[in-house]
Amino acid sequence: MLTLKNYAIDRWTEGSGGGADIASAVTGAAIARSGSGGLDFGAMVRHARDIGGRNLRRITFHERAAIVKALGTAIMDRKEELYALNFHTGATRKDGWIDIEGGAGTLFSMASKARRELPDDVLFVDGPVEPISKEGTFLAQHVYTSLKGVAVHINAFNFPVWGMLEKLAVSLIAGVPAIVKPATATAYLAEAAFRILIETGKVPAGALQLIIGATGDLFDHLTGQDVVSFTGSAATASKLKCHPVIVRESVRFIAEQDSLNAAMLGPDANPDSPEFQLFAKEVAREMTVKAGQKCTAIRRALVPAALLDVVERAIIDQLRKTTIGDPALENVRMGALVSLSQREDVRAKVGALKAEARVVFGASDDLAVIGADAAKGAFVAPMLLRCDEPTAAKAVHEIEAFGPVATLMPYRSLDEAVLLLNRGGGSLVMSLFTHDPEVARDVMLGAASAHGRVIVIDRDCAKEQTGHGSPLPVLVHGGPGRAGGGEEMGGMRGVRHYMQRTAVQGSPAVLKAVTGAHVKGSAVSSGPPHPFRYRFGELEIGKSIETAARKITLDDIEHFAHFTGDTFYAHMDEAAAKANPFFPGRVAHGYLILSFAAGLFVDPAPGPVLANYGLDELRFLTPVSPGDEIRVRLTAKSKKKRNEEYGEVRWDVLVVNQKNETVATYELLTMNAI
Amino acid sequence: MLTLKNYAIDRWTEGSGGGADIASAVTGAAIARSGSGGLDFGAMVRHARDIGGRNLRRITFHERAAIVKALGTAIMDRKEELYALNFHTGATRKDGWIDIEGGAGTLFSMASKARRELPDDVLFVDGPVEPISKEGTFLAQHVYTSLKGVAVHINAFNFPVWGMLEKLAVSLIAGVPAIVKPATATAYLAEAAFRILIETGKVPAGALQLIIGATGDLFDHLTGQDVVSFTGSAATASKLKCHPVIVRESVRFIAEQDSLNAAMLGPDANPDSPEFQLFAKEVAREMTVKAGQKCTAIRRALVPAALLDVVERAIIDQLRKTTIGDPALENVRMGALVSLSQREDVRAKVGALKAEARVVFGASDDLAVIGADAAKGAFVAPMLLRCDEPTAAKAVHEIEAFGPVATLMPYRSLDEAVLLLNRGGGSLVMSLFTHDPEVARDVMLGAASAHGRVIVIDRDCAKEQTGHGSPLPVLVHGGPGRAGGGEEMGGMRGVRHYMQRTAVQGSPAVLKAVTGAHVKGSAVSSGPPHPFRYRFGELEIGKSIETAARKITLDDIEHFAHFTGDTFYAHMDEAAAKANPFFPGRVAHGYLILSFAAGLFVDPAPGPVLANYGLDELRFLTPVSPGDEIRVRLTAKSKKKRNEEYGEVRWDVLVVNQKNETVATYELLTMNAI
Repeated sequence: MLTLKNYAIDRWTEGSGGGADIASAVTGAAIARSGSGGLDFGAMVRHARDIGGRNLRRITFHERAAIVKALGTAIMDRKEELYALNFHTGATRKDGWIDIEGGAGTLFSMASKARRELPDDVLFVDGPVEPISKEGTFLAQHVYTSLKGVAVHINAFNFPVWGMLEKLAVSLIAGVPAIVKPATATAYLAEAAFRILIETGKVPAGALQLIIGATGDLFDHLTGQDVVSFTGSAATASKLKCHPVIVRESVRFIAEQDSLNAAMLGPDANPDSPEFQLFAKEVAREMTVKAGQKCTAIRRALVPAALLDVVERAIIDQLRKTTIGDPALENVRMGALVSLSQREDVRAKVGALKAEARVVFGASDDLAVIGADAAKGAFVAPMLLRCDEPTAAKAVHEIEAFGPVATLMPYRSLDEAVLLLNRGGGSLVMSLFTHDPEVARDVMLGAASAHGRVIVIDRDCAKEQTGHGSPLPVLVHGGPGRAGGGEEMGGMRGVRHYMQRTAVQGSPAVLKAVTGAHVKGSAVSSGPPHPFRYRFGELEIGKSIETAARKITLDDIEHFAHFTGDTFYAHMDEAAAKANPFFPGRVAHGYLILSFAAGLFVDPAPGPVLANYGLDELRFLTPVSPGDEIRVRLTAKSKKKRNEEYGEVRWDVLVVNQKNETVATYELLTMNAI
Repeated sequence: MLTLKNYAIDRWTEGSGGGADIASAVTGAAIARSGSGGLDFGAMVRHARDIGGRNLRRITFHERAAIVKALGTAIMDRKEELYALNFHTGATRKDGWIDIEGGAGTLFSMASKARRELPDDVLFVDGPVEPISKEGTFLAQHVYTSLKGVAVHINAFNFPVWGMLEKLAVSLIAGVPAIVKPATATAYLAEAAFRILIETGKVPAGALQLIIGATGDLFDHLTGQDVVSFTGSAATASKLKCHPVIVRESVRFIAEQDSLNAAMLGPDANPDSPEFQLFAKEVAREMTVKAGQKCTAIRRALVPAALLDVVERAIIDQLRKTTIGDPALENVRMGALVSLSQREDVRAKVGALKAEARVVFGASDDLAVIGADAAKGAFVAPMLLRCDEPTAAKAVHEIEAFGPVATLMPYRSLDEAVLLLNRGGGSLVMSLFTHDPEVARDVMLGAASAHGRVIVIDRDCAKEQTGHGSPLPVLVHGGPGRAGGGEEMGGMRGVRHYMQRTAVQGSPAVLKAVTGAHVKGSAVSSGPPHPFRYRFGELEIGKSIETAARKITLDDIEHFAHFTGDTFYAHMDEAAAKANPFFPGRVAHGYLILSFAAGLFVDPAPGPVLANYGLDELRFLTPVSPGDEIRVRLTAKSKKKRNEEYGEVRWDVLVVNQKNETVATYELLTMNAI
């Protein structure tokens, strides 16, 4: 019997006043005691804000990402401790893999994205500089900065580890401390994972806290700088969303709640097409993985009317293979629901669904349980229902039986299928099994707005596809309407939920100071030595060089054409070039301009600049005619450390002609020694 | 006396049952009658969804942008009709310019952004393709599609034209029909502007509807595909946000409500610095423009404690110039508040503020009104208050007197200033007057998360700066916390509020079909003729060519180096190149590779390809040593029509070596004849 502890104000604290007992899903025996009595929630919020927020905001995105990565490593190192508790939740080892290793993988993925996509700074820009003045003395730039509040994470019981970690990954990278409230039914597993995080010693003081039990007056202490990220039932979400403080303070509320996800077999399928088998297997798999207790599980399976019977048989063939029992046993494919009350809930909801659909597989009285007592554990059989008139039905589109339950239904046309897909009222995910890309486009246009994720599965991606029910850290997870209207993950999109977007307006010097990047019009420093002489750490943003001029002759153009083989008529044929709407006559090749520009600005001797590794946003703006002269302004624009040996430097390059017209602009990328 | 009409189900409809009279702000006489009695709100919502949404979604972003532009042109063509009504709202012509021409300008700006930044399609992508499989048979891409619902726009009284148009611009471009509910106090001006829109004949059936008066059971008909965009008081917003349907259906709710915006004079200022004068003028201007009835107006003016008295005098000097009276008169600078009840509200709130601040200018009994009756019109004097202990105060940070009212307050350190800025609990905008970019960065890091917009004004941008109180269409408008937590405008960011982001997963062929763009791994068509032989309209996405190989010799490298002047050591010095961490020895110039690549793929004869106008995302991935051979795969990736004569083609370019290693990848941009 475990006594679970809260982690408040950087200390492990047992709840006072006696908490609730938590039972094993498999044996029904009490295995842990929860309780948050005696916690000072106001003090916890202040501690998060004053200490945790400050600690997180004074380190950069890259440093936060390093912490997140270290937390992932710790989870992987100690995963067996978590697998040992996982079985009590009713989950098999395979189910636990999604939760535990999937959770660690999410930390790794987010940490890696943050390193690659965010600067080594505490704010980042959104979109380009907006030119809001004629002379360029006044510019604007959107930036994201960390909210100066706390993230309250209210998690669901089904993925106690992953559910906690996917939220923590983004809030930590955003620089926002979190208070985590796991669902009580599996709080012992969340507490164990949380303990691993704390025991790394890498979590800054105040950055993470844990509440095992009721949240008391926690919400009363929130403000508009805080975020609540909730995963759970629509009923609870509705209550919380209207909490007077949430409403008054416009506290951000990210909700992920009920979802009647659908899988659809395309109209192009027949019993012999690979997509048919892929569909039947996926429906059965989604019903039984984690005993169907996944927010993303398939609840509605839509098939062409003509295939209804044969699909039904194919799914049942798959379901028959499901062995049910003690999830710790190797020959068991499906364990138990999380609790007996959850089983009651599923049974009641199946009861309601029966008003519109009939059970074609898995009447619960024929349950054979391996290695466990069916009376004591929360076991149920997978249940396939069939609804023959889904357009007239209501319950099958609205009632989510959160267990191994799905309803099969026919459609008669693509329009009807889209209608049925959208009858879910907003879902986390839908899958489409088709080998016709045009069907995919049509269904997308019809149904995408009601779904947070659409996965199209066919023979071409069958081997590598990641599954209907698997949210990925790089993709948004969430859905409109019934699904709660929230979004989580999605790579750095998820980080933004914990940050404020602000439009900053000011002079170029101000934008440069705020963003750390050179902006057109901000001061440059042009004296010797050449900018290529500075090591990464020493190179100042704004360090610049303006080159001498070089005349481009007709000989140069002809020579370049014959040397490279690029004899495009605009360079070679005066009459044809003149007929072109953009050119006054023969003009220099764009790549000749680029090459001469490099010849003008490159400092050839060995030094800190190791390589030109690329170029972005090149635009040729004024053609160069024979006799024109070009010169180049090269300015250090921004820097990003790659590792301990070198870092990327982004240079702003401006090529002008003898009339000071802009010939070309681009951003040059070099790798510089640290 | 005008009888205002609703526009419901594509018909002008007078409200039944008698509506409320609306009085002129200047004379107090009734000038219009409102009323929405008898409207069938459910039918209006269904009409918007079924007819309006369908009509908008079957045209592209560019076509919708053309409509939006036409609406802007119509407003400009008929602007005098609106100016004539504008005076009744209490606004001067200058105030009306913000509302009327500012509204048209927002339509133009959004239309132009949509043309430039969105594809000529009905969906657009968000971020890059995510490589979520090893072999590349399974990819993901986030896309935005139009919500299949209706936008309900609830507008404030202060900018009846601009407030309506800035919301309509983005929802129309997003492909979502709107039902507009203007504030009653100035509904006659909104109705006149709306009539101009309808009379263009450019608005698709069902796309726009108007409610002049109460919204009845409108909200009962909303779903998760709908959006409510609300501008008004926090009290009303709180009520609407908790409407059971809004909560149950997770209807998107964008709120822009109260805001205690602040202006701050930097610690670097003194009475002789340009920023000092700029600050005093801006505070006075913001107080008096539109009689201070701007959501973005300065309510709190923060100055270094030592400058408090001298700033007070400077602002008062400015305020003394304010002539008050009939806004139609040329010598009147400030008109009236919108209504007598609004005047009562302002007076009551000033009364509450007086508990913490004293009035240092503008006691309302010394009011001289020009050309109007002070007893009948809603005139008030500008009122400057002063609060000497703002850290201890509460009301000055929380009570928004929506009129020509601001409170001056001192700060003693930068930290204290940031604290005070943030005491507003979330604002639409703050301004900072400083000539020290480091102060700007520090204040940004301290206060940006509590503000939707930060404007830094100094001598360098003084001439071109757009003003504390002016939201711009390209910048987000909105703020966290007390300001409502919503965001509007921000260029195409605003369009996204009316669309659903969906993660799409599938094979390359599926992603290509959905997004219309070539994706790595999707099928290419390689036969003759050369892809450069196709006109814009005929060129198919996926049309591709693989070139012959070309060997790059040491002679080529040396020749190129001497010809261009680029004698960087990595190309010229074997020993130095070998010492470089990236190169095996001397390597070819990146620009030599680019140039030879062009030589390999260019089809030189005159044809539909008019120009190479740029290049994006070039990365050099494998160095090319003397003796290596390169060849190129060029594939049409996406197209975007620019005008009736030509369009942009984006080509995916892959350069490989003889070992099939990727040497370089980039996107080439050409302009092709239509």
